[in-house]
Amino acid sequence: MIPHKDYQDRIEQVLDQILPDRGATLGKANSNNLNAAMRYSVLGGGKRVRPLLVYATGEALNIPVDNLDAPAAAIELVHAYSLVHDDLPCMDDDDLRRGQATTHIQYDEATAVLTGDALQTLAFNILSQPIQGVSAENQLKLLNILTTASGEKGMVLGQAIDLAAVGHFIEEQQLEEMHRHKTGALIHASVLMATYCHASQYGVEEETRLESLREDLRIYADAVGLAFQVRDDILDIQSDTETLGKTQGADLAAEKPTYPSIMGMTAAKEKLYQLHDKAIYSLSGFGEEADLLREIAEFIVKRIK
Amino acid sequence: MIPHKDYQDRIEQVLDQILPDRGATLGKANSNNLNAAMRYSVLGGGKRVRPLLVYATGEALNIPVDNLDAPAAAIELVHAYSLVHDDLPCMDDDDLRRGQATTHIQYDEATAVLTGDALQTLAFNILSQPIQGVSAENQLKLLNILTTASGEKGMVLGQAIDLAAVGHFIEEQQLEEMHRHKTGALIHASVLMATYCHASQYGVEEETRLESLREDLRIYADAVGLAFQVRDDILDIQSDTETLGKTQGADLAAEKPTYPSIMGMTAAKEKLYQLHDKAIYSLSGFGEEADLLREIAEFIVKRIK
Repeated sequence: MIPHKDYQDRIEQVLDQILPDRGATLGKANSNNLNAAMRYSVLGGGKRVRPLLVYATGEALNIPVDNLDAPAAAIELVHAYSLVHDDLPCMDDDDLRRGQATTHIQYDEATAVLTGDALQTLAFNILSQPIQGVSAENQLKLLNILTTASGEKGMVLGQAIDLAAVGHFIEEQQLEEMHRHKTGALIHASVLMATYCHASQYGVEEETRLESLREDLRIYADAVGLAFQVRDDILDIQSDTETLGKTQGADLAAEKPTYPSIMGMTAAKEKLYQLHDKAIYSLSGFGEEADLLREIAEFIVKRIK
Repeated sequence: MIPHKDYQDRIEQVLDQILPDRGATLGKANSNNLNAAMRYSVLGGGKRVRPLLVYATGEALNIPVDNLDAPAAAIELVHAYSLVHDDLPCMDDDDLRRGQATTHIQYDEATAVLTGDALQTLAFNILSQPIQGVSAENQLKLLNILTTASGEKGMVLGQAIDLAAVGHFIEEQQLEEMHRHKTGALIHASVLMATYCHASQYGVEEETRLESLREDLRIYADAVGLAFQVRDDILDIQSDTETLGKTQGADLAAEKPTYPSIMGMTAAKEKLYQLHDKAIYSLSGFGEEADLLREIAEFIVKRIK
């Protein structure tokens, strides 16, 4: 299980509160379906890697945990929306996610499209509401980081490249470019957002110190983000559907390029451990306040699902 | 043609600059498709009613036009994304929009899903970048207005109700509830956003005056928003495909409830003119600085496409 202290319970509660209640809207037509599908798509499990990275980075920087709930929830909502759309028949056409039927199977395709749309909107809505302890300027920064990471220069670009790469031979460098956008951008954003969750009252000296730590954390985030994907590719081959909660071998079946398929399994595992070492080394400037970040890096390379 | 002064050219230029360039990204796979599809979906014509309402409201309040470009573009991007997704086969399944093939016909379904997603993200990204002359607090307000209006309590809810209403008998009140969300919410947001496009340096007296004008403008926006939809419903019956640029009779064919189908054509037209009068009356507190708002109300009830 992923190291989380109490943050896993915390993010579940935050998400539960943020998502619209069943039947809390007009109570007519399929407005209920929409709300129910939003809850179904987000609250149905998930490792919560991105929110945990927000909290763990906040811990490393001694930022009050209350300041972190909004960005932690927002990034998970963006991740959840991307999964709902990614699973659609015209995209990856997946039936199973987190051990459950995917949203378009449980409801229908139209509801799944709208659910993804609404989850994305909700993510940015959360960040537009006043956040205690965070200045308006820094809130705009959070919004800028998250929208940049998830849009046509980030996650969505990664998905477009992914779709186009199916059945084609690509080289390691291109594969990395794809993952840097598709998965890496949001993981990077999780860490980076946390570094802006304070009031803008820092003096020049403290800002300079924070900027230096931010650079270290960027290296951490990039290494961990890529490691996450390499591990994902390995699991697609070596795990089984029940453990994964999604269809094992799906990438292979869809002729998607993966690290093991391009560089071989041994080299892929070697790469994974190099990325882990890079992540740990990037945190040298931190003391035990960054232990959770270290534990998450450890988890990401060793996880079995 | 819609009254616009020079704002129509202005918004086209703003949108053209904001949208990612063809080939400006990685230049690989279908990342180009994504950018090209984004441009195709937004720059392919359109009346730009929502941006024009932003500019016209700003004019009524004597707000510098430079402050208005970002919200004007953002709301058009949200509108454009909703059309791309709404036209998908699993939704309204439309082939024609603004006289052109819809995005999923011109490209493919997966690209259309991603294009809509990226256009939504871009809308909020625009509003997260510093806007000259608008305070950070007011920028957050713009983001809050637009996300609230377009999410599961606004436009997306309207679309969910719309889908569920197909083939069912609903009453006028329910039809109005649907349109208030589906179309009305964004039109309301266009007007409301413009009222926050200033630095937060207003004194108490000026703020009080602005709040009072804001209430008048809310009434204007609600009346115009509903009138827009009533006119749309009438045009679906009385116009033709070439003039409309979208399939004439589509609502009728899809057994969608419309104002003429529920209350009869004569009553629908009567309602349209009542809404127009209400919109004009709501502007009584304004002088000629609100003439463009008045002209837009006039256009909306008389437009032929």
